[in-house]
Amino acid sequence: MKRTTSELFLRVERQSGAPLRLQIERELRSAIQSGRLAAGALLPSTRALAGDLAVSRGVIVEAYEQLLAEGYLLSARGSATRVAARRTEGSLASPANPVVQSFRFDFRPGLPDFSLFPRRLWMSAMRRVLGRAPDLALDYPDSRGVHQARVALAAYLNRVRAAAAQADRIVLCNGTTQGIALLCRVLRERGVRKIAVEDPGHADQCTDIRSFGLETPRIPVDDDGIVVDRLQRTDARAVLVTPAHQYPTGSVLTSERRAALLDWAERRDTLIVEDDYDAEYRYDREPIGALQGLCPDRVAYVGTTSKTLSPALRLGWLVLPHSLAEDVAAVKLQSDRGSGVFEQLAYAELLERGDIDRHVRRTRLIYRSRRDALVGALRERFPKQRIHGVAAGLHLLMDLRPGSDEKGIVDAAASRSIRVYGGSSYYARPAAAPPSLLLGYGGIAEEIIDAGVSELEKVILGAS
Amino acid sequence: MKRTTSELFLRVERQSGAPLRLQIERELRSAIQSGRLAAGALLPSTRALAGDLAVSRGVIVEAYEQLLAEGYLLSARGSATRVAARRTEGSLASPANPVVQSFRFDFRPGLPDFSLFPRRLWMSAMRRVLGRAPDLALDYPDSRGVHQARVALAAYLNRVRAAAAQADRIVLCNGTTQGIALLCRVLRERGVRKIAVEDPGHADQCTDIRSFGLETPRIPVDDDGIVVDRLQRTDARAVLVTPAHQYPTGSVLTSERRAALLDWAERRDTLIVEDDYDAEYRYDREPIGALQGLCPDRVAYVGTTSKTLSPALRLGWLVLPHSLAEDVAAVKLQSDRGSGVFEQLAYAELLERGDIDRHVRRTRLIYRSRRDALVGALRERFPKQRIHGVAAGLHLLMDLRPGSDEKGIVDAAASRSIRVYGGSSYYARPAAAPPSLLLGYGGIAEEIIDAGVSELEKVILGAS
Repeated sequence: MKRTTSELFLRVERQSGAPLRLQIERELRSAIQSGRLAAGALLPSTRALAGDLAVSRGVIVEAYEQLLAEGYLLSARGSATRVAARRTEGSLASPANPVVQSFRFDFRPGLPDFSLFPRRLWMSAMRRVLGRAPDLALDYPDSRGVHQARVALAAYLNRVRAAAAQADRIVLCNGTTQGIALLCRVLRERGVRKIAVEDPGHADQCTDIRSFGLETPRIPVDDDGIVVDRLQRTDARAVLVTPAHQYPTGSVLTSERRAALLDWAERRDTLIVEDDYDAEYRYDREPIGALQGLCPDRVAYVGTTSKTLSPALRLGWLVLPHSLAEDVAAVKLQSDRGSGVFEQLAYAELLERGDIDRHVRRTRLIYRSRRDALVGALRERFPKQRIHGVAAGLHLLMDLRPGSDEKGIVDAAASRSIRVYGGSSYYARPAAAPPSLLLGYGGIAEEIIDAGVSELEKVILGAS
Repeated sequence: MKRTTSELFLRVERQSGAPLRLQIERELRSAIQSGRLAAGALLPSTRALAGDLAVSRGVIVEAYEQLLAEGYLLSARGSATRVAARRTEGSLASPANPVVQSFRFDFRPGLPDFSLFPRRLWMSAMRRVLGRAPDLALDYPDSRGVHQARVALAAYLNRVRAAAAQADRIVLCNGTTQGIALLCRVLRERGVRKIAVEDPGHADQCTDIRSFGLETPRIPVDDDGIVVDRLQRTDARAVLVTPAHQYPTGSVLTSERRAALLDWAERRDTLIVEDDYDAEYRYDREPIGALQGLCPDRVAYVGTTSKTLSPALRLGWLVLPHSLAEDVAAVKLQSDRGSGVFEQLAYAELLERGDIDRHVRRTRLIYRSRRDALVGALRERFPKQRIHGVAAGLHLLMDLRPGSDEKGIVDAAASRSIRVYGGSSYYARPAAAPPSLLLGYGGIAEEIIDAGVSELEKVILGAS
């Protein structure tokens, strides 16, 4: 049995005149009654508590015995003393773990399959990190991230995404959201008032950007990506785009549009924020390199492990123009003094050993099969509806017939335990948007995709 | 040998008329010349790359052979093909890992001993977490933190710090800095313009708070803690205090001052932010419970693992009044969608098993010995100087003789490889502050403390 040297806050007043044993009993009783000591909480051993309070052990033994007799404490022979369950009903009792609704057919977009997370790889990387990292690695990190991780990441992005990244222009952060938040703070300080965003686009990002006091003029997207002509009519000083796989339409920014976008940034002295959120997953099209590689001094690149590994890691990065790198690092320092060191080092290990490459290749095959199954099922059951953005990513968009009640379909599907998302909610003006459904295939098993689409067909037929 | 299925961005133009082999050679050559492919980078196997580009394997074999012949690539028999070292000299080469200056006698304050970090405990907690966590735990977390971690933390804080914490009013975050930043954002949105801070106090926190557009009126601290009378003369709507161990003087807020502070908050409808940064380390005084436990609806409590475990974890928490909990969780969501899940779960495991209690007890003994050695050495060599804040924490403050050249002493010490901090820099007006030295004993071995103080004495004698 482990020695129970648990910690406990107890206060005795030596000047009060009340016997110490009574004081200790009273304090313990009230801590249990109020819920401050929760049911099941381990008490310190009598020896340890006597030492803490500088009283004789007998005093503590007697106090514990009294409370055992009163039923506040429990003690099995040879085992530690704990707070009894039935006596804790105080206001500090913990609420139950909230129940998460689960769906039979879950087409939630923007997520990987959690069961594909390489737990063993992550564990062995963590073991090597904890075994090898020098003690100095346990200090506050460089606010940009651990040097080794930035070097490994730059090499990876340059090799795989045709980026032009340098370690000293990378800031590792807690996912894409924080990356964009850091940029917003720096741009706001520099007098930027508007960051243009895509329409349709990532609605949460828009809300986040506005929370920093920035406006978000919406620029339409067509099959070639963002309409740069329309961007030119605004006075936005920055634009947030998803060139490799537009969110949510899945369109790819064409090379003409890329050139026009870079030209806009050059002539107007503006910034392009490139959200490369799921670029690792492309299936049957030519690879699309990062815009950042074409013009590293005009593009702030944002990437994440949320799609290739898991959003639970909260690990992402910025690759910044020279003119922004220092200020963003300073804002990161002020925000949270840098991101967690062990995760950065573990990810760097996996990058350096090629484990991430192998994991991406392996999961890409799985997601491609799911994509094929979903596209096949949709084409069969909805032969007239156009499907967008199937060449890459973890989701696709299917048009509904004009006039369809998109919200009614989404709700009816949910009531049959099918989770799909309405496309119009990603538009600036949802009421004017064409009805469509966003279907993610990252988190649904290939075997049940056809059945899910079949159920969805019934819902849609029933709604029309 | 592992199959080399590394990923590589390469683009071929099937319409260009140029032979594919030549295109691939040219692309690879220029990627290596530019540094995009770094020295030592693994190339994909010829089979994998042929598959990716949908060309015959022979084309890739020939391209690789040509570049091997030109010295761009290296290939040992039976081993993978890599980029040769001497050919990489591009602009993307990584800078060397910056060298950290180390000191013979390092009295840097505010840090634990990194060598005491319980690597094995952390590793085994991580192993259990990765082994047991359900797949759903790999989703984006609740922005307040994982439920299990908030429950375990509430129980710990209530038991050990006499807090009145409830799981649903806790927000786990990336350390104290982020906790205070989240509070600042919410308070600013509610129209607060001034957060009073202690003088002397934590200078970085002041800068951080001002970066959110808030003023930081400074309130003097004496031997009883913050002077509440002076706080009452300001119109600040919140105050940031360190009641258990004032930073940097080490004074403890007396019970009279506690009552006065809570009374101020009640009458003025203001908020007390309690930074309980190193409260686990108290040595020979009565325990001081958290202010939060006395008035949970007026106090926002901030805590961290940076002193008990390591700042590299970047794990801290807020315990919030009911009126703030929801808004702070929303701002956390906007800031970074929550903190890393695995660390929260690992920390919860260690709390639940009592491992944190045992670790704190074990390290407390070590730090107490260091404290004793440092106090003993200082009393012997500087018998006339007052020493403050020795009863708790990981640092102390020693007055210098009036008129001493504090900065000169700090610099002269550094030149003899002794790191100490000048106390006056923690004051609003350093020039008017009494000269003093801040000495941390968290990171210095007990055996060399006396020698360090002896060297320091020479420096101080030489400077006067």
